[in-house]
Amino acid sequence: MNPDEKTYTLSRLAERLDGQLAAPSAAKADKAKQAAELTIRGAAGIEHAGAGDITFIDDLSKLPAAEKSQAAAVIVPAEIEKSTKPIIKVKNPRLAFAEVLGLFAPPISLPAGVHPTAIVGDEVSLGENVAIGPYVIIGKGTKIGEGAVIYPQTHVGENVTIGAGTLIHPRVTIGWGTEIGAHCILHSGVVLGADGFGFNWDGKRHRKIPQIGRVVIEDDVEIGANTTIDRATTHITHIGRGTKIDDQVHIAHNVTMGENCIIAGKVGISGSVHIGKRVTLAGQVGVVDHVTIGDDAIVMARAAVFNDLPAGSVSSGTPAYPHREYLRVEAAVRKLPELLRQIRELKQR
Amino acid sequence: MNPDEKTYTLSRLAERLDGQLAAPSAAKADKAKQAAELTIRGAAGIEHAGAGDITFIDDLSKLPAAEKSQAAAVIVPAEIEKSTKPIIKVKNPRLAFAEVLGLFAPPISLPAGVHPTAIVGDEVSLGENVAIGPYVIIGKGTKIGEGAVIYPQTHVGENVTIGAGTLIHPRVTIGWGTEIGAHCILHSGVVLGADGFGFNWDGKRHRKIPQIGRVVIEDDVEIGANTTIDRATTHITHIGRGTKIDDQVHIAHNVTMGENCIIAGKVGISGSVHIGKRVTLAGQVGVVDHVTIGDDAIVMARAAVFNDLPAGSVSSGTPAYPHREYLRVEAAVRKLPELLRQIRELKQR
Amino acid sequence: MNPDEKTYTLSRLAERLDGQLAAPSAAKADKAKQAAELTIRGAAGIEHAGAGDITFIDDLSKLPAAEKSQAAAVIVPAEIEKSTKPIIKVKNPRLAFAEVLGLFAPPISLPAGVHPTAIVGDEVSLGENVAIGPYVIIGKGTKIGEGAVIYPQTHVGENVTIGAGTLIHPRVTIGWGTEIGAHCILHSGVVLGADGFGFNWDGKRHRKIPQIGRVVIEDDVEIGANTTIDRATTHITHIGRGTKIDDQVHIAHNVTMGENCIIAGKVGISGSVHIGKRVTLAGQVGVVDHVTIGDDAIVMARAAVFNDLPAGSVSSGTPAYPHREYLRVEAAVRKLPELLRQIRELKQR
Repeated sequence: MNPDEKTYTLSRLAERLDGQLAAPSAAKADKAKQAAELTIRGAAGIEHAGAGDITFIDDLSKLPAAEKSQAAAVIVPAEIEKSTKPIIKVKNPRLAFAEVLGLFAPPISLPAGVHPTAIVGDEVSLGENVAIGPYVIIGKGTKIGEGAVIYPQTHVGENVTIGAGTLIHPRVTIGWGTEIGAHCILHSGVVLGADGFGFNWDGKRHRKIPQIGRVVIEDDVEIGANTTIDRATTHITHIGRGTKIDDQVHIAHNVTMGENCIIAGKVGISGSVHIGKRVTLAGQVGVVDHVTIGDDAIVMARAAVFNDLPAGSVSSGTPAYPHREYLRVEAAVRKLPELLRQIRELKQR
Repeated sequence: MNPDEKTYTLSRLAERLDGQLAAPSAAKADKAKQAAELTIRGAAGIEHAGAGDITFIDDLSKLPAAEKSQAAAVIVPAEIEKSTKPIIKVKNPRLAFAEVLGLFAPPISLPAGVHPTAIVGDEVSLGENVAIGPYVIIGKGTKIGEGAVIYPQTHVGENVTIGAGTLIHPRVTIGWGTEIGAHCILHSGVVLGADGFGFNWDGKRHRKIPQIGRVVIEDDVEIGANTTIDRATTHITHIGRGTKIDDQVHIAHNVTMGENCIIAGKVGISGSVHIGKRVTLAGQVGVVDHVTIGDDAIVMARAAVFNDLPAGSVSSGTPAYPHREYLRVEAAVRKLPELLRQIRELKQR
Repeated sequence: MNPDEKTYTLSRLAERLDGQLAAPSAAKADKAKQAAELTIRGAAGIEHAGAGDITFIDDLSKLPAAEKSQAAAVIVPAEIEKSTKPIIKVKNPRLAFAEVLGLFAPPISLPAGVHPTAIVGDEVSLGENVAIGPYVIIGKGTKIGEGAVIYPQTHVGENVTIGAGTLIHPRVTIGWGTEIGAHCILHSGVVLGADGFGFNWDGKRHRKIPQIGRVVIEDDVEIGANTTIDRATTHITHIGRGTKIDDQVHIAHNVTMGENCIIAGKVGISGSVHIGKRVTLAGQVGVVDHVTIGDDAIVMARAAVFNDLPAGSVSSGTPAYPHREYLRVEAAVRKLPELLRQIRELKQR
């Protein structure tokens, strides 16, 4: 996909990637020049690369597949000498390919400035080149940093802070008092700062505990579509710098999460959970309230965390326990019907 | 519920359903005419049918319940001869009843044309009788087919295609480049084309892999409220014709799904999963990345798919395995405490 | 957090809470007056209480922690005699503290009246002091009770009823015919009244069963962000008075739920489930269709309900069964690898 029909010559891409261009192995000198001037029209994985596309491989074993593909050129690890296709040799093909994808990505489609239909409250401070789309509402006292982009139909509450360069897709809700760092990305349907789920039973009915805390999101955080992060009861629900959160994740009140975590789709994190740095929670993981998960812990898909997990641990299952033990237990569980038969035999003897 | 207070005579309904009307069994000739002219004011299941309602049964065993109900008339299978209530005999009462429900459903409440508050970009092409509601935004280059209806407050990105007769409920986000077929229904809060969840760890931080692929939805697909379908990294996240997706489903980047699948509420499908035709995923099912599920496979509620599943299979559990085996294993698991006791005994002997 | 910088003297808080103020234990008479005039600037839990904050404890064992905290004053149970900090003695400190939180919560930020950009249909009835925000759409025939607040960008369909004092946060969708009681709270992204997920397979394709029922929400219900409650097929999806529903819950068509239930985050409830009064479903619980759960039942986190559950039961697991049995079975499951070894030994003997 290349909505803007941008093109790059292969030599310009090589320059951009700080890579070394090499013409097809069998080529003569004039072919080398042809390779440098080759027009690249898009980028795709090997499987889907078309005639004008550049693709990439991250080890030698995939070179034959790349050469058989329709791709016009291949980004390869520096140790690869030659290919039947034009190649760009780089240190880290995966990072280089991501950079190329960025070149073909469509630009921000919202011009700087405030759309006439946006409603901006009193005492709002807007940095330079801020773009605010149609039907956006910005509450009073809110501060928006330089170059931030707020696509249409988003609601920003009062006294919110949004850092420089942060990108907010259409139809997001940001509750009062929320603090969002620089260079964050919020996808459509995100709700930050809805009330935490807190009630006291008075013997007759559940009485609401007003939630007057806030949500704080540090720099460089990405939050997926329809994810919800609730405000704290009295303090802060906190997401650390560089953490990446997928779609339809729910993070309850008073949760704290360290930097550079990876939280996959549909994870649910209950109230007052503390999560360290570089933690990975795979898809559909659940965490009960008041649990602590240590730095670098990994929780495998669908596990449910009912107890604290130590730093560096790898856990599976419901309740979650060490993954290696889980594998042994699961294998044994599958043998249970056979086991019952054996025990019946033993008893008869 | 019949918000428009529409009414139909029983004979008109019979005609519409290509069914045969029969007066109550004990009735004389003049009663037959009365039955034909009976006014039907709504439709409901047996349990809730009120005085003016028509209901249905799909086999003879339910006839007594229908006759005891408040319903004014009953849609019945053709083999039923007579009843104490007026009946309409049809081939397939379930399909016939659905047709009657359609007659009582409220019509589209949005007039054709573009509401003055909608913001429509350059080079947008609108088919005949397209209805675009208040506060809708349509990005440049988008094409909308004949008779499509876009309810208020939806955001349609650039270069999107929306097929004829497609119905989009309020507050939906459709990302740039998305392709939606004809006669689709998208419910509120749907997000199509948010970025896939892809990052490269560079040793210090997670660097975003720009997602430049698209979402393609074929004809006759229904997508439930607050469901998210992410764009592919470089190619297409694809949903086949006639597939029905419930609320709060998450479908990650690069997923392909065949035609006529049923995906129930809260299912989560990870990246690069391939799903065949007529697959059923029941509620809260999860599928890890890069797995293939064959045609006609059924995955039972809450199962987690960690490995490929063959065509025609029925699976349960976490990880998912054949349902029959799952039932045996689960029964055995429940006997485990008793088993431990028996083994202790055996050892003592 | 105290966005409005409200302050209260300690004596005013004591009065408000119907509590008894006591100066620090070592204080002389003039100190007692100082305590009464102490300015309270916010409220927080012990862990986070700052210099101007009031905090609370609910039993004597926490008094030392409260005294060590930064808090300016402490709400305590009436049986506590004295403290090194100023205290307010009350019957129920937890309820009293919630009341204090309410005093510091920001007020409704929307003035009464209809914002000029709101689009209000014909025959809409608005009670006194209703506040309708920018870019809200209200369908024809809708009735909104006294003092209800509808924050921006919400879509209210036709013939909806919204009770007095109900608060609707930004970006909510309320489908036609929905009935919402008084003093409810709906958070952002909620969708009430999307179509239930119902199809008939006709041998070639899934044909939609039109959903013409409604959603009825009784008084004093709270519904969390991005939660979806689908309309019934022909009758009513019903939520009882005082029930509290967390974020990202899905409630399918034809469900009925009694009063004062607690439904935690990410719960999924399938079609035609009947849930009694005061039922608790913990996080990520799933319930398959057509199941009945009795009054006062508790379903623990992540359990999947595949069968009816009796009143007063406590259940865990997938499928859910009595929690006590679950604990025994789970303990036994973890011993399975060891068990296999023992059986091998027994057989060799």
